[in-house]
Amino acid sequence: MLEHFFSPGTVAVVGASREEGKVGHDLLRNLVTYGYKGKVYPVNPKADNILGIKTYASLREINDTIDLAVIVVPAPHVLAVVDECHYKGIDSIIVISAGFKESGIDGASRERDLLRKIKQHSIRMIGPNCLGLIDTQSALNASFAADMPAQGSIAFISQSGALCTSVLDWAVDECIGFSKFISMGNKTDIDEVDLIQVLDSDGQTKVILGYLEGVNNGMAFMHAAQKITKKKPMIIVKSGGTMAGARAASSHTGTLAGAENAFDTAFKQSGVLRAKTVEELFDYARIFGQQPLPKGPRIALITNAGGPGIIAADAVERSKLEMAALSKNTIDLLRSSLPPMANVYNPVDVLGDAKADRYKFVAETVAADPNVDIVLVILTPQTMTEIEKTAEVICEISNCAGKTVVTSFMGGKRIKNSLKIMCQRKVPNYPFPERAVSAIEAMYRYTLWQKKPIPEMKEMNMQKEQVVPVFEKVRQTGRQDLGEDEAKQVISVYGFKIPRSILATSETEAAEAAEEIGYPVVAKISSPDILHKSDFGGVIVGIKNASEMRRVFCDMTQKSRRLLPSAEIKGVLVQQMITGGKEVILGMSRDPQFGPLLMFGLGGIYIEVLKDVTFRIAPIGLHEAEEMVREIRSFPLLQGVRGERPVDINALTDGIVRISQLVTDFPEIMEMDINPLMVFPDGGGTMAIDARLTITQAGAS
Amino acid sequence: MLEHFFSPGTVAVVGASREEGKVGHDLLRNLVTYGYKGKVYPVNPKADNILGIKTYASLREINDTIDLAVIVVPAPHVLAVVDECHYKGIDSIIVISAGFKESGIDGASRERDLLRKIKQHSIRMIGPNCLGLIDTQSALNASFAADMPAQGSIAFISQSGALCTSVLDWAVDECIGFSKFISMGNKTDIDEVDLIQVLDSDGQTKVILGYLEGVNNGMAFMHAAQKITKKKPMIIVKSGGTMAGARAASSHTGTLAGAENAFDTAFKQSGVLRAKTVEELFDYARIFGQQPLPKGPRIALITNAGGPGIIAADAVERSKLEMAALSKNTIDLLRSSLPPMANVYNPVDVLGDAKADRYKFVAETVAADPNVDIVLVILTPQTMTEIEKTAEVICEISNCAGKTVVTSFMGGKRIKNSLKIMCQRKVPNYPFPERAVSAIEAMYRYTLWQKKPIPEMKEMNMQKEQVVPVFEKVRQTGRQDLGEDEAKQVISVYGFKIPRSILATSETEAAEAAEEIGYPVVAKISSPDILHKSDFGGVIVGIKNASEMRRVFCDMTQKSRRLLPSAEIKGVLVQQMITGGKEVILGMSRDPQFGPLLMFGLGGIYIEVLKDVTFRIAPIGLHEAEEMVREIRSFPLLQGVRGERPVDINALTDGIVRISQLVTDFPEIMEMDINPLMVFPDGGGTMAIDARLTITQAGAS
Repeated sequence: MLEHFFSPGTVAVVGASREEGKVGHDLLRNLVTYGYKGKVYPVNPKADNILGIKTYASLREINDTIDLAVIVVPAPHVLAVVDECHYKGIDSIIVISAGFKESGIDGASRERDLLRKIKQHSIRMIGPNCLGLIDTQSALNASFAADMPAQGSIAFISQSGALCTSVLDWAVDECIGFSKFISMGNKTDIDEVDLIQVLDSDGQTKVILGYLEGVNNGMAFMHAAQKITKKKPMIIVKSGGTMAGARAASSHTGTLAGAENAFDTAFKQSGVLRAKTVEELFDYARIFGQQPLPKGPRIALITNAGGPGIIAADAVERSKLEMAALSKNTIDLLRSSLPPMANVYNPVDVLGDAKADRYKFVAETVAADPNVDIVLVILTPQTMTEIEKTAEVICEISNCAGKTVVTSFMGGKRIKNSLKIMCQRKVPNYPFPERAVSAIEAMYRYTLWQKKPIPEMKEMNMQKEQVVPVFEKVRQTGRQDLGEDEAKQVISVYGFKIPRSILATSETEAAEAAEEIGYPVVAKISSPDILHKSDFGGVIVGIKNASEMRRVFCDMTQKSRRLLPSAEIKGVLVQQMITGGKEVILGMSRDPQFGPLLMFGLGGIYIEVLKDVTFRIAPIGLHEAEEMVREIRSFPLLQGVRGERPVDINALTDGIVRISQLVTDFPEIMEMDINPLMVFPDGGGTMAIDARLTITQAGAS
Repeated sequence: MLEHFFSPGTVAVVGASREEGKVGHDLLRNLVTYGYKGKVYPVNPKADNILGIKTYASLREINDTIDLAVIVVPAPHVLAVVDECHYKGIDSIIVISAGFKESGIDGASRERDLLRKIKQHSIRMIGPNCLGLIDTQSALNASFAADMPAQGSIAFISQSGALCTSVLDWAVDECIGFSKFISMGNKTDIDEVDLIQVLDSDGQTKVILGYLEGVNNGMAFMHAAQKITKKKPMIIVKSGGTMAGARAASSHTGTLAGAENAFDTAFKQSGVLRAKTVEELFDYARIFGQQPLPKGPRIALITNAGGPGIIAADAVERSKLEMAALSKNTIDLLRSSLPPMANVYNPVDVLGDAKADRYKFVAETVAADPNVDIVLVILTPQTMTEIEKTAEVICEISNCAGKTVVTSFMGGKRIKNSLKIMCQRKVPNYPFPERAVSAIEAMYRYTLWQKKPIPEMKEMNMQKEQVVPVFEKVRQTGRQDLGEDEAKQVISVYGFKIPRSILATSETEAAEAAEEIGYPVVAKISSPDILHKSDFGGVIVGIKNASEMRRVFCDMTQKSRRLLPSAEIKGVLVQQMITGGKEVILGMSRDPQFGPLLMFGLGGIYIEVLKDVTFRIAPIGLHEAEEMVREIRSFPLLQGVRGERPVDINALTDGIVRISQLVTDFPEIMEMDINPLMVFPDGGGTMAIDARLTITQAGAS
C-alpha cells in the first residue's frame, strides 16, 4: 500500500536548489546522504547539477520512470508540476510547499484545485505544507529535516511539521529509533487513516505514534484503529481540544458532548492510548518499543534508596497496577543473601551500598518469581554504587526474563553512561520513578484492551417503519424538534415503556383525562416550541383531584401564552404519575467527526451540576452499555446505598442498546434525550417520563 | 539560628577514615575540597593524618573550640561521642551514622537514648541516618555526597538522603544552584520546622524546596509555613500518602478525612505549593529561582511552529492562566513588521524561517504590551533557526522586561548550547511547553496566595461553660459517643437551631409528644449505642397521626432490641419534621498531625458516593468558611438551579465558623458530624436535624 512513498526506486525533487539552507537544497541533500539506494533526479530549469548530481529542466526530460516526486516549488507553480507528474505517469507525490489552506482564502481555493487535479489524475499525495517523510528501512529521507533518525520500531505521524523537527532532534539524543516518520501537512489527500493502515502492515513498525489536531474522517479512523490496536499499540497526542467552541445544542446530551468527549470516547473505544503531552507520548513509546507486554498488573520495585522506593510505591497505588506480593520462596532467598538491614518485601531495598552483584541477584530472583509480572529497578548514584555495571546486569536480566523490565536511574552526569548502555540494550529508563510507573500502567491498560473481546452487536428486530411517518410529519410541518408525544411515540416503537398520557385541550378534558388515568397525575404543557418545560412552569406534579387539575390547566396554558406568545400551545398533557424509581438520562448527540455519541448519566439536576456522565459512539452492544452504567461516579446510587434495593441494571443496559440501535437506524436523528428515564428496583424495568428528539431538516439526511 | 551548622569556624569529623569510598573519608574530603575557610579536625584514634591533615585520637585532644561535630562512627559508639562533645562544649552535631529508628527495635531504643542525651546536654542535632548538609555560601560541604552544587537561590531539605544524591547529580547537569542542601535523616531533634525557619531568615535562599514523608509537628509546621510563604515560596513533595491506612472512624467526616486530605489542606492553608512529583518540584523551583513573579495571569505565547503553539494554548486553557489579548498597538506593530503569513494574535507565530532578529522584535513588542504579564517563547530547531542567538536575545529581554519570561526550546542535540546560555542567564527552559505552562501556573497561584489577606479570626462569645457538664456526664457513664440529644445540646449552645423534639419512652408518651409538636413528625430511635440509625430502620419520617405514631414506636423499639440486643434503648425521639431546605453536612475529625480538620459537603447519600467535600484546619474565619462552601463541585445546587431560590449561604458559613470555634474551644472533641444540617432559602437560616459527637476518654484531653 502506498509503497512508492516509502520504498521508491526513483525519486524526483522538483524545485531542487543549489542554495544551502533552502528547503529544495536540504531535501535533496537528505535524499543522497543517508544511504538511500534508489536513483535521485533533481529538477530545476536553472541548474545543470546540484550537489554534483545531473539536474533536469523538467520532469519530462528525465529518461526514466519516476516512482515518487517531491515537489518544493512555490505554491502557485504546484498545479503545473502536478500536470507534468501526470504526463510522466507518476502516481505518488509529496508536496512540501506551503501556501495552501493554512495561508487563507486564496490558498484554500488553490488547495481545492490541487485536490481536484490529483483525483482526476489518480495521483496520491502527502501534504501540501509538510516536512516530508523518512523511511529508515529504505534509508529514504525525503524531508528537509536536519537529522536522520536511527532505525527502530516506532512510527511517528504528525500533523505539525515543526514538531517533527523537535522530535527528531530530541530522538537522536535519547537514542530513539524510528521505522517511519511522516509529516502529514494539510492532509488534503493522504491522511491519518491511510497512514495507520500502511503502518499496520509494516513489519518494521511495532508502535504507532501520532500528533493530531483533528481527524479527517472520524468513523473511518475508529474503524481502522479498532483493528490495528488489537495487534499494535497506537499512542496519540490530540491537541487543539480546549479551543473548540461548543456548538449550539438543544438537548442536555448536546450541551455536554463536545468534540473533546467525542475524541476521548473514540480513542477509548478503538483502543488508542491518548497521551496528555508529547513527553508522555515518548515515555509510552519507549516501553512499547523496547519491552514485552506485561502478563498482569503485579509490579515489583527494587531500589537502593528508601525515598524513591516510597515515591514509586505511591505512584503504583494511584495506578491500575498492583504491588506484587513476593512469594515465600523469593523472600527466603532474599533474606538469606541480603544484609540484615535490607527490606526483603516489595519494594525490595538493596541498601545504599549495593553493588552490581547484589542488584543482579535481587533482580534475577524477583524476576523469576511467578507472582511478579513487571520489575522496576530504581537506582540513586551513591558512593558505592556501580552504575554502569548495574545497568549491564539489568539489561542481561531484561533480555532473559520474558517480563517487563524498566529502570529509573535517577541523576545527571554520573548516570549518563549507564543511560547509553540501557538505551542500546532496550531497557527504557525514566528519570523519575513516577514517569516509569505511568508508562508501565499505559502498557498494562493496553494489554487489557488486547484481551478484551470484540464487542458483539446484535441487531434487534424493531418496527422501524412505524418511525418513518412520525419523522415525515415533523418535516412536513417545517420543524426539526419533535413534540414530547412524538418523541415518545418513536421511542416506544423501540421498546421503551411510557407513562399513560392523554392530551387535553380544555379544563374539562383535562379533568376527564385525569379521572381515567387515576390521581395523582402530572400535567405538562404540550408545545413543540417549548423544550425546557420546567423553566416556564410547564410541569406540575402530584395533582390530586379534579379542581386542582382544572386550575393547573388554566394557569399553565395562560402562563405559557404570556411568556412565549409565539409558541404553538397544543394543550396540556395529563400523565400518569410515576414514583419509586431512580432518574437517569439516556441521550445522543451526533458528532460531526465520529457520529452518534451516546450519553448516560444519573438524571435530575445533578447531571447539569456534577456532569457525571459517560459516552460511547454507537452502535454498541450490551457489554459496552453495561460498562457505561458502571463507570459513572454515582453508580453506587444505582446499586442502592443504605439498604435500598438496586435498580434494574439489565433493563437499563437494554435501554441503552435500544437507543444505540435507534440512532444507528435513523441517521437523521441529530440529538435526543430521554430525561428522565425512570429505573425501578430490580426486575421492575424502566419508564421514559420525558423525551425530546431533533432531526435534520427535510432531505438533509 | 543554628548558625554553627551552616557557617561553623571549626568542624570536627569524628570517625574520619583513611579508606577511600568510606563515608568517613568522603565526608572529610568534601570538607576540605570546596573552599571551606574554617578549620577541619579529623578524629580517628588509629590514624596520625588523613588526606594530609593532622588527625586526633579523640575530641578532647583538639586544642581548639569546635563549633560543629560531624559524627560518622558506628551507631553503638555514637552516644559515647556525644558525651565527648558535651565535654568539649560543642552545641551542634550532625549524626551521619545509620542504625537507629530505621533499623528496628534496638535502633529505636538507641535513638531515644540519643535524644535524651542531647536534650540533657543542650546539644542540637541533625540526623541521625543522614547524608549531611551543604552550605554553598560558606562553601561547607559536610556531607558524603559525590558532588558540590553551584551557588544558587534554592534551598532543599530532604527526608531521604538517597534522593539528595540523585538530585545533586542531576542539578549539576541542569546547572541548578543551591543555597543550602540539608539531609534531615530521622529528624530526631532538628526537623523541617526548625529548618524552614532557618531558611526563612537566610538571605541567600529565595525558594525553599522539600521532600517530606511526614512532619513531626503539623501545627507548628503550618504556623511557620503560613508566615514564611508570604515572603518566600515553599514547594514540597510529600510522599508516602497512599500507603497510609485509614484509621477507624465513627463519623462520616472521620471516614472521609484521612492523612492525605489533612496534608493537602494544611499545605493549601499555609501557602505551600505541593508538587506531585520530584520532576515537578524542580520544574517549579527553577522558575521561582530565576524569574520575577507575574503581575497577573495573562500569558502571551511566541512560537515558530503552529503545533507546539496549539499544545501550549491548550495547556493554558486548562490552567488558571489566561491567554493575553494583545493590545491594538502591539498587533499593529507586529503586522507592520512580520511577514504576511505570520499570526499576529496570541499565540504569535513568527513562522518557521524566523531568525533571532524576528524573535527579538516580537518578544520585545509583546513583553512591552500592558496586557501581557507573562511571555512564553517556544522554539523548534528548524533549518533557518538561529538557536543560540535567539536564546541570547530572549535572555536580554528577560533581564529588562520586568515580566515573567520562560522558554520552551524543544529538541535535543541541536539545542544543547542554547540551554546552557539560558541556564546561566536565568531564563528557565522547559523541554515541553506543557511543563512550562504548569510551572508558570504554580507561580501565578503563589502570587494569589501572597496577595490573599491573612484570615481574620473573630472569636465569638459562646457559653462554653454550658458544654462542660454535658461532656462530664458522658465521661461519667464511661462513654465517648454522645447521644443525639446530648450532641444537639452541645451545638445549640454554639448557636445551632435544632428541631423541637421530645423523648418518648412509651407509645402513649410518643403520641402525646407528636400531638404537642404537630403532625407530621419524625421518629428516631434514641440510643447512645446506635450511631447509624437509618441502617437499622431507626428513622421514620412523615408520621401523620397518633395511630401511626404508636405503631412506629413499637416497631422501632422492638426492631432495635432484636437487631442490637446489647444496645441501651432510651426510647424514641419524636421530632418536628423539617422540609423545604437543602441538606448539607458539617463535620470535624481531629487529625493526629494537624488537629481539627473541618469538613463541609452536600448532605444525604451523595456525600458518601460522590465524596464532594472540602476541608480546612480549624480555626478558620468567615472568609475561609465561604471558600469552603463555594469550592465543592455541587455548589451550584446551593445557589439554586432552574429557578430555585438560593440557600442561606451566610447562615451556612456562620455555622461553619461556629463549628470551628467549638472544636477549637474543646480539644477533647475527636469527631463530629452535623448531618444533615438543613439550609433554608435565603434568609431562612439553618437547622441541625441530626448530630453526633465523639470525645476523648475521661482525662485523655
